[in-house]
Amino acid sequence: MSTKSQRDYVPTSADRFTFGLWTVGNSGADPFGTRTRVPPTPVEIVRRLAPLGAYGVSVHDNDLVPIDATVAERDRVVREFQTALRDHGMVVAMATTNLFTDPVFADGAFTSNDAQVRAYALQKTMRGIDLGAELGAKIFVFWGGREGTECDASKDARDAVRRFREAVNFLCEYVRHQRYEMRFALEAKPNEPRGDLYFPTTGAYLGFIQTLDHPEMVGVNPEVAHEHMAGLNFYHAVGQALEAGKLFHIDLNDQLFGRYDQDLRFGSVSLKSMFYLVKLLEESGYDGPRHFDAHPYRSEAEEGVWDFARGCMRTYLILREKVRAFQADTEIQMVLREATRDDPGLEALGRRFTPEVAERLKRLPLDRIEIAKRRPHYERLDQLVVELLLGVR
Amino acid sequence: MSTKSQRDYVPTSADRFTFGLWTVGNSGADPFGTRTRVPPTPVEIVRRLAPLGAYGVSVHDNDLVPIDATVAERDRVVREFQTALRDHGMVVAMATTNLFTDPVFADGAFTSNDAQVRAYALQKTMRGIDLGAELGAKIFVFWGGREGTECDASKDARDAVRRFREAVNFLCEYVRHQRYEMRFALEAKPNEPRGDLYFPTTGAYLGFIQTLDHPEMVGVNPEVAHEHMAGLNFYHAVGQALEAGKLFHIDLNDQLFGRYDQDLRFGSVSLKSMFYLVKLLEESGYDGPRHFDAHPYRSEAEEGVWDFARGCMRTYLILREKVRAFQADTEIQMVLREATRDDPGLEALGRRFTPEVAERLKRLPLDRIEIAKRRPHYERLDQLVVELLLGVR
Amino acid sequence: MSTKSQRDYVPTSADRFTFGLWTVGNSGADPFGTRTRVPPTPVEIVRRLAPLGAYGVSVHDNDLVPIDATVAERDRVVREFQTALRDHGMVVAMATTNLFTDPVFADGAFTSNDAQVRAYALQKTMRGIDLGAELGAKIFVFWGGREGTECDASKDARDAVRRFREAVNFLCEYVRHQRYEMRFALEAKPNEPRGDLYFPTTGAYLGFIQTLDHPEMVGVNPEVAHEHMAGLNFYHAVGQALEAGKLFHIDLNDQLFGRYDQDLRFGSVSLKSMFYLVKLLEESGYDGPRHFDAHPYRSEAEEGVWDFARGCMRTYLILREKVRAFQADTEIQMVLREATRDDPGLEALGRRFTPEVAERLKRLPLDRIEIAKRRPHYERLDQLVVELLLGVR
Amino acid sequence: MSTKSQRDYVPTSADRFTFGLWTVGNSGADPFGTRTRVPPTPVEIVRRLAPLGAYGVSVHDNDLVPIDATVAERDRVVREFQTALRDHGMVVAMATTNLFTDPVFADGAFTSNDAQVRAYALQKTMRGIDLGAELGAKIFVFWGGREGTECDASKDARDAVRRFREAVNFLCEYVRHQRYEMRFALEAKPNEPRGDLYFPTTGAYLGFIQTLDHPEMVGVNPEVAHEHMAGLNFYHAVGQALEAGKLFHIDLNDQLFGRYDQDLRFGSVSLKSMFYLVKLLEESGYDGPRHFDAHPYRSEAEEGVWDFARGCMRTYLILREKVRAFQADTEIQMVLREATRDDPGLEALGRRFTPEVAERLKRLPLDRIEIAKRRPHYERLDQLVVELLLGVR
Repeated sequence: MSTKSQRDYVPTSADRFTFGLWTVGNSGADPFGTRTRVPPTPVEIVRRLAPLGAYGVSVHDNDLVPIDATVAERDRVVREFQTALRDHGMVVAMATTNLFTDPVFADGAFTSNDAQVRAYALQKTMRGIDLGAELGAKIFVFWGGREGTECDASKDARDAVRRFREAVNFLCEYVRHQRYEMRFALEAKPNEPRGDLYFPTTGAYLGFIQTLDHPEMVGVNPEVAHEHMAGLNFYHAVGQALEAGKLFHIDLNDQLFGRYDQDLRFGSVSLKSMFYLVKLLEESGYDGPRHFDAHPYRSEAEEGVWDFARGCMRTYLILREKVRAFQADTEIQMVLREATRDDPGLEALGRRFTPEVAERLKRLPLDRIEIAKRRPHYERLDQLVVELLLGVR
Repeated sequence: MSTKSQRDYVPTSADRFTFGLWTVGNSGADPFGTRTRVPPTPVEIVRRLAPLGAYGVSVHDNDLVPIDATVAERDRVVREFQTALRDHGMVVAMATTNLFTDPVFADGAFTSNDAQVRAYALQKTMRGIDLGAELGAKIFVFWGGREGTECDASKDARDAVRRFREAVNFLCEYVRHQRYEMRFALEAKPNEPRGDLYFPTTGAYLGFIQTLDHPEMVGVNPEVAHEHMAGLNFYHAVGQALEAGKLFHIDLNDQLFGRYDQDLRFGSVSLKSMFYLVKLLEESGYDGPRHFDAHPYRSEAEEGVWDFARGCMRTYLILREKVRAFQADTEIQMVLREATRDDPGLEALGRRFTPEVAERLKRLPLDRIEIAKRRPHYERLDQLVVELLLGVR
Repeated sequence: MSTKSQRDYVPTSADRFTFGLWTVGNSGADPFGTRTRVPPTPVEIVRRLAPLGAYGVSVHDNDLVPIDATVAERDRVVREFQTALRDHGMVVAMATTNLFTDPVFADGAFTSNDAQVRAYALQKTMRGIDLGAELGAKIFVFWGGREGTECDASKDARDAVRRFREAVNFLCEYVRHQRYEMRFALEAKPNEPRGDLYFPTTGAYLGFIQTLDHPEMVGVNPEVAHEHMAGLNFYHAVGQALEAGKLFHIDLNDQLFGRYDQDLRFGSVSLKSMFYLVKLLEESGYDGPRHFDAHPYRSEAEEGVWDFARGCMRTYLILREKVRAFQADTEIQMVLREATRDDPGLEALGRRFTPEVAERLKRLPLDRIEIAKRRPHYERLDQLVVELLLGVR
Repeated sequence: MSTKSQRDYVPTSADRFTFGLWTVGNSGADPFGTRTRVPPTPVEIVRRLAPLGAYGVSVHDNDLVPIDATVAERDRVVREFQTALRDHGMVVAMATTNLFTDPVFADGAFTSNDAQVRAYALQKTMRGIDLGAELGAKIFVFWGGREGTECDASKDARDAVRRFREAVNFLCEYVRHQRYEMRFALEAKPNEPRGDLYFPTTGAYLGFIQTLDHPEMVGVNPEVAHEHMAGLNFYHAVGQALEAGKLFHIDLNDQLFGRYDQDLRFGSVSLKSMFYLVKLLEESGYDGPRHFDAHPYRSEAEEGVWDFARGCMRTYLILREKVRAFQADTEIQMVLREATRDDPGLEALGRRFTPEVAERLKRLPLDRIEIAKRRPHYERLDQLVVELLLGVR
């Protein structure tokens, strides 16, 4: 290994890197195979991630507390976990409820056709919120892993939306009443494990949030893999969320388009897209966790898990360095300037409507053939970015 | 042909079927081939569609008026077109601006990096709105065919959102000031002709609309093909839009997932999904146009265009008949009832938050193992739907 | 339910419908959830499928015999299974080896970088072949569930091909030496559970087979879901295989394009494509098993499994009836005839090369503009097919 | 620009980079827009590409000679083009026939249902072959741009295969009789411009070739974009073709999975996959053209075309340099060695079947649990590759 890569790209907690307990805790099992490694316990995860430079972890209720634990067991587990966090200087940045593993949720949780399932889901989530609050989580994520269908005859799609809204509204009130300092982040996914999931994209949730009783409490948690499954540009999705003030959390991993949920190591495939993503996060001043929601290859043994964790963070830091190089690259900046035509007068016109302005704009002699002669040099720009990424600039 | 299919499935204007001028007016040209037929003129389209039972047409400004027409030419063209509409009892249900064909829009219209392009796009759209109003269109659609990128270095994704908002806000004021009785419908598409388009899904626009100055004036125009390009469930997308009161218009066609924009004859591929869509439109009381945005195969000659148009409408009517059969099918309705467990007491609890209710719900003895024993029979339900669709029930 | 659907569509063993033990034996577990039902044992499966009209079953070695069974256990299990088969008049039409569940295959079986894994895979497959022969299977399927990569640095893609060939060649010799009356069928899949699988499509295997020592012993086992994952036309894939004399077995299910491996009930989504598939199988005289490789929704309880099995077979039979209606439909047949221009003289020219024929053909006055005037009416044809499928013709 | 990137990555004709006339000759038109630039003439293309370091060009018959040219016009055009080639030291490395632009091919060429179309396609191709031979092309490519369907009722998929075979067999004989030193390369594509194209993947053609009369004359021409449209691993596809001795030509560009045919600048998206591709081409000793089949963004003006051409070649050269770095990287090579377990004894067993060897292998005590303990470190390996690509090693 070169001196360079040994020296650099070692994170600190200021980088705010977090990992789900289920990520480094993945057992290697998949739909076609049994587990291939003994997953570390939550306490081991905290102990191992801290020296790698991570800032914290995130938890599903049942990552920590088994679904059938007694109150005494729950309390013991939580106490031990909190001790580990304190000992290693780690935080729980995000918590969430598991509403997908148990058979009771086979046809949905908040959107189930069964009123008892919906009630149980609410109950489990209130308890999950309590747990999250106890652990100090400021963000509570909702991923509706079973909120979907294989047979659309089973449910009017509008009822699914209504039921989901009812649940989120109730839980917002719960958080407010409990005076928890906690916000919600909704995580979209197009399909898997259900044939189709409701709210398939980050955009769908941005629309939904505005129909809630407390929209200000609720944002989104976009995940690279989930938008990529639908072949969508993740940078654009996060851009829209940020611009709307709704990026409350983010799930970093990687994924090829149009495939099963791969949850690959961050930046291991989509080098260029992930560069734009890091650029956006850094330039926007987003100060939330950089949360990795990925898992090691099934072929890894126990020690490979930490190679994986290190790799996620290193790639983020390398791309962050590229962002700075991009900003400082005079040729890139020149091509960008040339591709832009500002015209303060014209822009002022379009900005604020008055009847007079509209009339003036409508009659303005704008020669489309002349205007079209000015062309951006995006092939050149894109090539410069590629060369920057490949480290030859 | 059986007596049945000769008798039935002939539409009337009450069915509100409309066609874009560019659909039956398609020339058969594609990226790999020249035109294969002489497209009918707008007046011919009106004359031919009326006796087939269509209700109206929709127009891009330049479908009717060439981009470089003089005012006199424009007025003559519009007059002749209006005469044809009147003579044949057809309406213009929707109008829109072409912001994608001309080279001036090569890098976007409202989101272009060039202030002159943005101004020109505003100007062209105001004129397009005037034309639409003159033709009696109550819906004005925005499809941002060039609002996207191939090289994301060229533009901050947040600026694209801001610029698009500025334009839509301005144009809302314009419509209000002109006292046009007109609403806007935003049409999403994930990619093509740009590498990635901003606002790739109907959901993305539902989110965006809430950030406008006049959200009540603006809804969506979902298109089957566009959601299918991203492999998304169109029925779910339309369901969310309807539930939010935002389905202002709809583009009916068909498309295989994960492909170039195919714009196939309505219902020619996705029989089952299109059944659920028709079910939703009919059951929701949606009373807007059923607008076909498809085109005949390139191999068709002139006369095949009308086979195509007839087919779009027939399939809708056949599926509508299936919807009624579904509603009347006692076995299907029984399976649906069995799959649902209502529990008014529990549902009331979840509906309105009070601290007491929350406490009660949290402590309620809900046995997830018992609850999970009740299972829906969706394999049976789905098979019944398949058999209904195949006409063997 | 109408009299019609009660009477019809009940299969007999002459229809040669078979089910994998793992299909109706699926437990409802998936990557995001635990099992939801107690799967039936192999003996129960035989007992339940026989009265539904199935012809037989197919087995992975470890569906029947646990991977760590003693010889005595193996023999007892096999004996009991054979008794059940005999008692219920069922056959084992196909057998295969499980080379994907155990951790030893985490990085491949025949293509592993570890010589011991490759040797173990050969050993396990020889034993699996012996088991298949003992059960009377005439077809042995190879699905290389772990023959792939996430990191292409790990292996030269050419070595993977070579290693796979070496294994298949060895096993062909083994079958010949054992004088088993058995042929091999290779099953392609593009990805999942590996990031990418080698031989991703049926076409890739058709190419590979010709490079084997005994190509005549080896054909393909195309699966609907696997080609659909890559968005490919399954009817075309099976057509090529049949035309090459290489369709040795087939896996019937359903799947949306560009998604995780869904293994949906046969014909539950792609009504039109599955119609063309059934048409091809029936018209070609394919006389192998119609093998269902699907599984019930996770939300089904035990009894729903048999609804699922019945549905697979019913839909096949309904589509087969549609094939006959297509053949007998005079309007469809007329449109087809009109779309075809035979010209025996011209066709003879193109069929057999001689220098004179080539010269004549080259100089023949063929007016492309005149020729192009004759157009097929495929919009009409396609609409007729849609209406036939929807049962309104 | 840094000294480094100014100095390096300038190709010479020894690198064998070629461009289709239609690539740099693209006009910027697309399905939604008119042309945006005046395309250079073939002679200009030769004049401009030569100083950039290209080795040659490739041509469709009608890129050079209009479809309705007289013999005299044809001869003049060819003469001028040959003069330009000679003057600039360029070659025509590949030729092909356009069987897709003209309306006569609207429903296919060799697979058309119209015998006159099939005859005309043969005639046009013989003339195209003559032209190719006259220009010195050693490779003749077949891309069946219209050999497909939207309506599968129109044609039995097996007939399409048979007709295509008949045509290729005839044309092989033609080339042999003419004593042209020319081989055929078949180019697969899954869809676009037809709904589905026959022979959708490189694998499908590898299977087809073996059924020809002269398989030795025929290989494949895989294209990055075409395999990526189906979400397939291009490196694997080319690996299989190379291993079978069938890589006769290659089309380099880039493309996102599951989208319309993008034909992006080589290496502009899939940095990692294109690295493995270049590695394979270089390590295999492939000595054919590195042919770019891409086109500049529509937003480019005339001069941007040459930025685009330069970028294609530069990225190839940069990746080639990375290949050498990979080979020389001691850490990478060590991880690779550790991931491999050779066992010459075991490997010899599996290589050549004898009954004794089989018996021995079957009884060999292979402990799968022990074997599975040895694990490759692919997360580490993959991260090293990512860092190599990003230029931080």
